Amino acid sequence: MWAPGPRPWPVGALLLLLLFGAAELVPRVRRESGYTPDWPSLDSRPLPSWFDEAKFGVFVHWGVFSVPAWGSEWFWWYWKGEGRPEFQRFMSDNYPPGFSYADFGPQFTARFFQPEQWAGLFQAAGAKYVVLTTKHHEGFTNWPSPVSWNWNSNDVGPHRDLVGELGTALRKRSMRYGLYHSLLEWFHPLYLLDKKNGFKTQYFVRAKTLPELYDLVISYKPDLIWSDGEWECSDTYWNSTEFLSWLYNDSPVKDEVVVNDRWGKNCSCHHGGYYNCQDKYTPQSLPDHKWEMCTSIDKFSWGYRRDMVMSDIKEESEIISELVQTVSLGGNYLLNIGPTKDGLIVPIFQERLLAVGKWLSVNGEAIYASKPWRVQIEKNTTSVWYTSKESAVYAIFLQWPANGVLNLKSPISTSTTTVMMLGIQEDLKWSPDPDKGIIVHLPQLLPSAIPVQFAWTIKLTDVK
Amino acid sequence: MWAPGPRPWPVGALLLLLLFGAAELVPRVRRESGYTPDWPSLDSRPLPSWFDEAKFGVFVHWGVFSVPAWGSEWFWWYWKGEGRPEFQRFMSDNYPPGFSYADFGPQFTARFFQPEQWAGLFQAAGAKYVVLTTKHHEGFTNWPSPVSWNWNSNDVGPHRDLVGELGTALRKRSMRYGLYHSLLEWFHPLYLLDKKNGFKTQYFVRAKTLPELYDLVISYKPDLIWSDGEWECSDTYWNSTEFLSWLYNDSPVKDEVVVNDRWGKNCSCHHGGYYNCQDKYTPQSLPDHKWEMCTSIDKFSWGYRRDMVMSDIKEESEIISELVQTVSLGGNYLLNIGPTKDGLIVPIFQERLLAVGKWLSVNGEAIYASKPWRVQIEKNTTSVWYTSKESAVYAIFLQWPANGVLNLKSPISTSTTTVMMLGIQEDLKWSPDPDKGIIVHLPQLLPSAIPVQFAWTIKLTDVK
Amino acid sequence: MWAPGPRPWPVGALLLLLLFGAAELVPRVRRESGYTPDWPSLDSRPLPSWFDEAKFGVFVHWGVFSVPAWGSEWFWWYWKGEGRPEFQRFMSDNYPPGFSYADFGPQFTARFFQPEQWAGLFQAAGAKYVVLTTKHHEGFTNWPSPVSWNWNSNDVGPHRDLVGELGTALRKRSMRYGLYHSLLEWFHPLYLLDKKNGFKTQYFVRAKTLPELYDLVISYKPDLIWSDGEWECSDTYWNSTEFLSWLYNDSPVKDEVVVNDRWGKNCSCHHGGYYNCQDKYTPQSLPDHKWEMCTSIDKFSWGYRRDMVMSDIKEESEIISELVQTVSLGGNYLLNIGPTKDGLIVPIFQERLLAVGKWLSVNGEAIYASKPWRVQIEKNTTSVWYTSKESAVYAIFLQWPANGVLNLKSPISTSTTTVMMLGIQEDLKWSPDPDKGIIVHLPQLLPSAIPVQFAWTIKLTDVK
Amino acid sequence: MWAPGPRPWPVGALLLLLLFGAAELVPRVRRESGYTPDWPSLDSRPLPSWFDEAKFGVFVHWGVFSVPAWGSEWFWWYWKGEGRPEFQRFMSDNYPPGFSYADFGPQFTARFFQPEQWAGLFQAAGAKYVVLTTKHHEGFTNWPSPVSWNWNSNDVGPHRDLVGELGTALRKRSMRYGLYHSLLEWFHPLYLLDKKNGFKTQYFVRAKTLPELYDLVISYKPDLIWSDGEWECSDTYWNSTEFLSWLYNDSPVKDEVVVNDRWGKNCSCHHGGYYNCQDKYTPQSLPDHKWEMCTSIDKFSWGYRRDMVMSDIKEESEIISELVQTVSLGGNYLLNIGPTKDGLIVPIFQERLLAVGKWLSVNGEAIYASKPWRVQIEKNTTSVWYTSKESAVYAIFLQWPANGVLNLKSPISTSTTTVMMLGIQEDLKWSPDPDKGIIVHLPQLLPSAIPVQFAWTIKLTDVK
Repeated sequence: MWAPGPRPWPVGALLLLLLFGAAELVPRVRRESGYTPDWPSLDSRPLPSWFDEAKFGVFVHWGVFSVPAWGSEWFWWYWKGEGRPEFQRFMSDNYPPGFSYADFGPQFTARFFQPEQWAGLFQAAGAKYVVLTTKHHEGFTNWPSPVSWNWNSNDVGPHRDLVGELGTALRKRSMRYGLYHSLLEWFHPLYLLDKKNGFKTQYFVRAKTLPELYDLVISYKPDLIWSDGEWECSDTYWNSTEFLSWLYNDSPVKDEVVVNDRWGKNCSCHHGGYYNCQDKYTPQSLPDHKWEMCTSIDKFSWGYRRDMVMSDIKEESEIISELVQTVSLGGNYLLNIGPTKDGLIVPIFQERLLAVGKWLSVNGEAIYASKPWRVQIEKNTTSVWYTSKESAVYAIFLQWPANGVLNLKSPISTSTTTVMMLGIQEDLKWSPDPDKGIIVHLPQLLPSAIPVQFAWTIKLTDVK
Repeated sequence: MWAPGPRPWPVGALLLLLLFGAAELVPRVRRESGYTPDWPSLDSRPLPSWFDEAKFGVFVHWGVFSVPAWGSEWFWWYWKGEGRPEFQRFMSDNYPPGFSYADFGPQFTARFFQPEQWAGLFQAAGAKYVVLTTKHHEGFTNWPSPVSWNWNSNDVGPHRDLVGELGTALRKRSMRYGLYHSLLEWFHPLYLLDKKNGFKTQYFVRAKTLPELYDLVISYKPDLIWSDGEWECSDTYWNSTEFLSWLYNDSPVKDEVVVNDRWGKNCSCHHGGYYNCQDKYTPQSLPDHKWEMCTSIDKFSWGYRRDMVMSDIKEESEIISELVQTVSLGGNYLLNIGPTKDGLIVPIFQERLLAVGKWLSVNGEAIYASKPWRVQIEKNTTSVWYTSKESAVYAIFLQWPANGVLNLKSPISTSTTTVMMLGIQEDLKWSPDPDKGIIVHLPQLLPSAIPVQFAWTIKLTDVK
Repeated sequence: MWAPGPRPWPVGALLLLLLFGAAELVPRVRRESGYTPDWPSLDSRPLPSWFDEAKFGVFVHWGVFSVPAWGSEWFWWYWKGEGRPEFQRFMSDNYPPGFSYADFGPQFTARFFQPEQWAGLFQAAGAKYVVLTTKHHEGFTNWPSPVSWNWNSNDVGPHRDLVGELGTALRKRSMRYGLYHSLLEWFHPLYLLDKKNGFKTQYFVRAKTLPELYDLVISYKPDLIWSDGEWECSDTYWNSTEFLSWLYNDSPVKDEVVVNDRWGKNCSCHHGGYYNCQDKYTPQSLPDHKWEMCTSIDKFSWGYRRDMVMSDIKEESEIISELVQTVSLGGNYLLNIGPTKDGLIVPIFQERLLAVGKWLSVNGEAIYASKPWRVQIEKNTTSVWYTSKESAVYAIFLQWPANGVLNLKSPISTSTTTVMMLGIQEDLKWSPDPDKGIIVHLPQLLPSAIPVQFAWTIKLTDVK
Repeated sequence: MWAPGPRPWPVGALLLLLLFGAAELVPRVRRESGYTPDWPSLDSRPLPSWFDEAKFGVFVHWGVFSVPAWGSEWFWWYWKGEGRPEFQRFMSDNYPPGFSYADFGPQFTARFFQPEQWAGLFQAAGAKYVVLTTKHHEGFTNWPSPVSWNWNSNDVGPHRDLVGELGTALRKRSMRYGLYHSLLEWFHPLYLLDKKNGFKTQYFVRAKTLPELYDLVISYKPDLIWSDGEWECSDTYWNSTEFLSWLYNDSPVKDEVVVNDRWGKNCSCHHGGYYNCQDKYTPQSLPDHKWEMCTSIDKFSWGYRRDMVMSDIKEESEIISELVQTVSLGGNYLLNIGPTKDGLIVPIFQERLLAVGKWLSVNGEAIYASKPWRVQIEKNTTSVWYTSKESAVYAIFLQWPANGVLNLKSPISTSTTTVMMLGIQEDLKWSPDPDKGIIVHLPQLLPSAIPVQFAWTIKLTDVK
């Protein structure tokens, strides 16, 4: 049972023992069932079942980048790392000379942040889990990290424990809580030092990364750790396998926690829990490992941008289409929104999320807890995606056929086959295709009677 | 021809002659066609035709109230005039003690304001005119008024002539430009003095209201003056008839300019140009005077509110429905959005405006330059609205009938009658109703072939 | 009797009647003793005696210029009027592009302003009157002017009536209160318009200058009006003689009020009350008209500058020397300090003022209510200044003579002559100069026994 | 040789090796002359001679506390640690709710900081060394510490290396540079954790204190380390003896560096380099260990307070008196000023410092490089302090005797004795006291000829 309550401050002894090479003090009694800190062992762990059943989650990118709210959540890097002219111009046009990224901190007020409202919205969107950036590459922590003094949401800006507050609201609704965490920090002096040393030193990992990872797990008991920022170094530098073996063997969330695959530059798509591979990864055929597609309603940014225009924003149909394709191919769909520095989710994001929720309220049966079927996409018909659950097969078609007849090539009917459309009471008329498959006669529906505007689900039972 | 160019500064002699009781210096040669400064004469002026033809405009509420962007554009009044507790709490929660409304001024930066983008959006929305708040009841002028020193957009905040810049962008697109102007200013010391004097003095009118009205007309040559803030005093106090007679007889826009009816507490719905009557006024039957319905996408505010949630926002169908009803009843529809203090129009407003534009791209024929028909709304069928143009009658139905048959009771067919649906190539099947009217057999359309999702237009020709 | 109390708001009818050319409504009953609005009559008014007796006052420059607090109180003019490169650079180095002077307003907080402390300090400095900038050339009013809405200390920044609060504190200590008022405002649109019209129009004077002058007099009942900013136009433009005749005949301060000479470009050193002539004016011989020397402790600015260094600041001896010379030549000495935007008087100014107060506590007898003597400065001895009062003559010498003997050439001793030094109990030894005058044997004083460090006063009685 | 140049960033390997318990990697070859990490050995080190010769230094308290600039440099502690009502009220009166101390950071701009000007002023004050707060108890570092990310002067606020820049300017003038460093940080989470653990853990020391101390030494090669903030724990917790043995044996400043005595709660007045004992410590007789008296021109604060009044500020005579007494008793005098957040030293501090410089320009011979004499203070005459140098004895008397005769009881004249006053050319008249000592006939000086106003020095040669 997860009981937030007032956060004990400072954090427990366990965390800090780990801070400076004292990892050996952590009980290392290897139980029979224990995982060893190597990939063969860690990769052998079965993925806790909740994750595959959840299918749809909401991703939240929030941090100091929400203050300039311009260009991208990579604002700092583009400005100071790459020195892109448009970012330099943005700063010189709008701020006094010498203004630094850290100077944005106090303006990240989160003053209207109401975690209950957020959680209610995400629930209404049909999301089963929510992943929040606890710390992006900028290094600002959205919780009172003891090793990020005066660069965290408790000391500067919101003066609140954002990670904790959202968690509390989500748990009330029995939603799963995932924590995004960037291993690297672009401009942390110790990270830069390790980098200069060819990552043969681990000052940064020991002073910042690991203490914070342990703190997050112990303090917030996440269901999911969404690791990122791994790409410049191997998992050895990050001590990833040690962390994961502790997480799987000894942590308070060892039974339920899920992780992704970003634990070292050699790991993505190869090791860890489920696979993200690269951002917005979209496989063309059924992968043999559980995966997740993450994408953002704002096509050009994960963090909030004030200057979004409508053409930058994914259409509802595009979102539904991706969701269907992803689930059909065995993936989860993690859809991102970026709140404002005030802690608000702007209406266009609310609208898109609620549209997904509305679609799922009709078609969720074909999505949640479904399994890929033996066929994922209809070869002849480019726009029919299959899922399955127990004795049912779901064919989700994205365009309504011109003649009102849907020709499904893959299912083989039996004597007890039934054909329905989700959202419609009566069974549909159908006939076996003399050639192969099933011919479904779609109902002639009034505009007002159509259950959804896009992506309709045919439920087939007792087909082969 | 309207040529903006660099604004001559300070303003011309005419304007200032009027400042201090020198109105008699304005040439008063009464031409034969001249209007006299009284309602019978002024009301007799025919409304320039462009206005009735335009049908659809966009209203823009922008000012210092866009800085707190909370509650309403009446923020100042609710806070300091009425002393509403939630507004007082908002201030004490978020600002240091003693922070005043005027202190918000420098934060109204308009830094991302791109008038070309705004004008492009409004054009894409199908608007034929745009009305901007040049000055709301707060008194802050969005142009460099010579009698509002250091409380205008050139001296404080944007440091730009917002009224001028938007005008230039609109004129490029041949859109009509309307200027909203509040006669009163809640907290202007001279207005308060006049009020204390029972409006028997006119210090405020002579020092502020009239100079600004003349300046606006001379500097920006508006097509429309959308007067407001008249309700506490008679038109005599405001010197409205004198102003209007000058506007109609001698001003540079005397031939084309249109005004509304808010020129004194006795005027609304009775005198002036077209009638607004009260905000969001909706007559139930055809008025005998040209009118305009103004309303806002945000149901609870005209100015931008950061804390809007989706349920506060008018649905597309609601907007279309209002537009149709308004035009059918002879009105214009003026739909409001509130930009941010940065000068951005948030995506949800973009989306709603573009949705109207999309609907009008199919159905505009039934809207623009249409006239009310002899019947406005079908008695038996609650949701069919009529318009007409030349030989055509348009029946716009809001719900698709369950049986696919639309029964129009009012039109009487002739031998040459044709029946079409806007957005569909082929003529529709129809038959005269044995009883009365016409029975239209609606086409069976695939979801993808439906021209719009809501409010379809049947075009009838040669009916009686 | 001056009773501040809660300020009646808005101001009385009289003031406003004057706003728009309605001056004729003011009672014009010419009493026998009345002054007519012309210089011969006005100049004939005797100067109320308190002013000549006061001798020493403190000048206070405070306004929005105290926010940048850099360069000068002419900051705005140097930046935007003249475009001096160092002021432009100051802005571009420290503020975002587009930041305007008016944007400084909210930062003028006056948060630590304690008028009682100021008044106590000025009293301890020995000042008999205090002159505050109610409005400098920037136009910002330090009181709630009804014709400077949102550009005054009540609406923006301090949110207090600075003029009123200081007045109350001064009156408690029976100190005289003078109001500095700038006739012109560099950037007021109406002033710029009048200027463009060759000052043949008076829009600015009628809308701003006169209403504010009347308001100041009626609301604060000043003992002194220190007019400034007159230099671009004649007194005719400013309507100065009308104002002064009202002030002298009908105002509530008609008996006691004193004014200076800056009422038109033709007036300085020629008309008005006492003469200031130019800033820091220093005559070389006794003028035949009462005058005042104004100067500033900060040699390079009247307003506060953050970047003062010690070499910019007048030495105590320089201040005393000027005071002595000024009084000897019949003038008053008005010494300026510039408070900070926070409302504080920095210690170096406190120290200099208190040093003057300390000197006056010993030598004040020779200063306050004194009259010029028949000789002002000793010809042979460059550093002896004379004053007189009743039967006493005061010889103030600035350097201690090397031989301890002070040779006064001008006084002629009599049989009853006595010679003392202020601050020393015993009479001094002296002898008539065989040649002419008096030879004074200065006492041999321990460093600790010297009454002051600089500028000692010999008091002679019964000399000719 | 100290060569500042561009600071290598990030810092050298040595520093970081020390970060996490890798101290054993530092070369530990014990040279013959090496100091062992224990007090008997460390205390045996002779104090480098420059320090005793310097006598007078300037102390500079500058940090984020210079932003509120109110109450004290302990602002944060009084506000949040003790919760003093007046500090809580200051915050609620002037800042929005929730404003934190870290939020002050960006306002610490140092925009006018000109290190050359500071150094020039300190030199003109006669200071031979300057001690700057590199980090006060608030933890904000005035240099780019690699372990204080985003809470240092390079990342936030000034965006400059304040410690480095002042050092460069001082070295140009051959002045010695001391670095104040607080061991503790009131609110650092790791310090709070160690405290909770009864200081049995050293997370804070290893993560923050020691890395920064080593970084300061290696980067800035200080002549003096002014340690503070030691009082809650023993030197064992702080690892002080290890650090000092490295500093004395192996650091780049091992030959010249001087430290004080605040290295653990058991150390003050007992161990380390010279002794500070408590703040403003003033012994009554000659201590047997080199010591330093630190004090502040503002009697109530070390950091800048905007609200200083003159009575809070030490008089020049008080400062000179303390300097004389301190040097006579074998101490150094370290006089503090607090610059503003803008990087300016307000004039009153400039004036006091320059006054000391002026006094030293006459009397420095009796101060710099002097030694205590066999008598420090004249028993019979309460206000004569002695110093000595080679064959000279200096008697500094604070009040001028009423009869012009100074009776020195302690010196015993010889046949070659001479008596002078510093600042006066001629020898003084004197005679041996028949009883004991020397009777000096002070010259009768004109006020203008007195070399100083307070504290005159009699130089005696060839006395016993």
